[in-house]
Amino acid sequence: MVPPPVKVFGHPLSTNVARVLVCLEEVGAEYELVTIDFLAGEHRVPDHVARNPFGKIPALQDGDLILFESRAIAKYILRKFKSSEVDLLREEDMAAAAMVDIWAEVEAQQYYPALSPVVFECIIFPVMRGTIADHEVVDESLDKLRKLLEVYEARLSEHRYLAGDFFSFADLNHFPFTFYFMATPYASVFDAYPRVKAWWQSIMSRPSIKKIAANMPTKF
Amino acid sequence: MVPPPVKVFGHPLSTNVARVLVCLEEVGAEYELVTIDFLAGEHRVPDHVARNPFGKIPALQDGDLILFESRAIAKYILRKFKSSEVDLLREEDMAAAAMVDIWAEVEAQQYYPALSPVVFECIIFPVMRGTIADHEVVDESLDKLRKLLEVYEARLSEHRYLAGDFFSFADLNHFPFTFYFMATPYASVFDAYPRVKAWWQSIMSRPSIKKIAANMPTKF
Repeated sequence: MVPPPVKVFGHPLSTNVARVLVCLEEVGAEYELVTIDFLAGEHRVPDHVARNPFGKIPALQDGDLILFESRAIAKYILRKFKSSEVDLLREEDMAAAAMVDIWAEVEAQQYYPALSPVVFECIIFPVMRGTIADHEVVDESLDKLRKLLEVYEARLSEHRYLAGDFFSFADLNHFPFTFYFMATPYASVFDAYPRVKAWWQSIMSRPSIKKIAANMPTKF
Repeated sequence: MVPPPVKVFGHPLSTNVARVLVCLEEVGAEYELVTIDFLAGEHRVPDHVARNPFGKIPALQDGDLILFESRAIAKYILRKFKSSEVDLLREEDMAAAAMVDIWAEVEAQQYYPALSPVVFECIIFPVMRGTIADHEVVDESLDKLRKLLEVYEARLSEHRYLAGDFFSFADLNHFPFTFYFMATPYASVFDAYPRVKAWWQSIMSRPSIKKIAANMPTKF
């Protein structure tokens, strides 16, 4: 008997939903995207709060199991549907798993806080709040980003991917916000870091990423 | 032959170092703390940047393996020294591991951003920068924290600990910043959430936590 596909409750525009969807695409799992229209406030209705008590998207349903927090959902998917071809967490090799964890945490703790204000100011807030970009916030963010990208450039000069010479969750994890960043007027910041730029292009060339990115419009 | 103990490069005052040390204490691993005096800028010298390219503490050395990012180091320790008595990640049970991941991510993505500004304003910045607390920042932070604690209260009414009825990395992960928060004038915010308060007291009663907390002075 074929198990029912997992259900993702979310919206294709959301970066945190995209993080989960690219994992499902990478492992080739069957899934159904149940649209939660967050622009209409559907993430705050009781049915959804029963899935995620913080009233956020995404949530994942796999049989009786309901999960939230995109990074936790992503790891669950990558563990559950792991195969000899696709193993993006490398948890059977303690040193490799640690490298995946390190660079996934660098994304969460350093890269996202540095880069995301540009995306919020230039893309998200103008749509959600009708504001225009605060250039002081953008400049501060770009300064932090450049310092980080120097370290990424050195890392990617030694290894093909962030965790080592293998593609992993650490790389995948950078997709959603970098994708939107590349639609801001500041995409050329990456031009000064050729290894980073080549790494980004290799991520963007993956079929999983192309498929999910096609549903993430950057002009509204 | 007994392997050499792992080395933690850091400073007992640092919350991110404390996150790693409590994991080592929980699993009962031998370790050596090599002091990096970050107040004197020692985290930015080349020897340390060779360990952590972002020039931050902690870093961990285990033989030839050098790791950074406290949450990644913590997971490495909890995997490497896992035993039948101490298994704080539960990675052999996919659903339990997902619950640990969810609540560890809630700490990283929601709890820390909500609560930490109070700690920065009331404890860290006064020592590091000689400033006094910005009450607008503190009030905004407390508002966010109260909303989160409502969800925590509901969760801890259903389960003894965050990930379920077992103590895990998700609980441990809340220790360092909550510990300093409890030394601010706003500790009584937790009084309105009796299940959360009982949970916090049970964390603070653990020998591992008592030992590490003893080296984290809150008055300077």
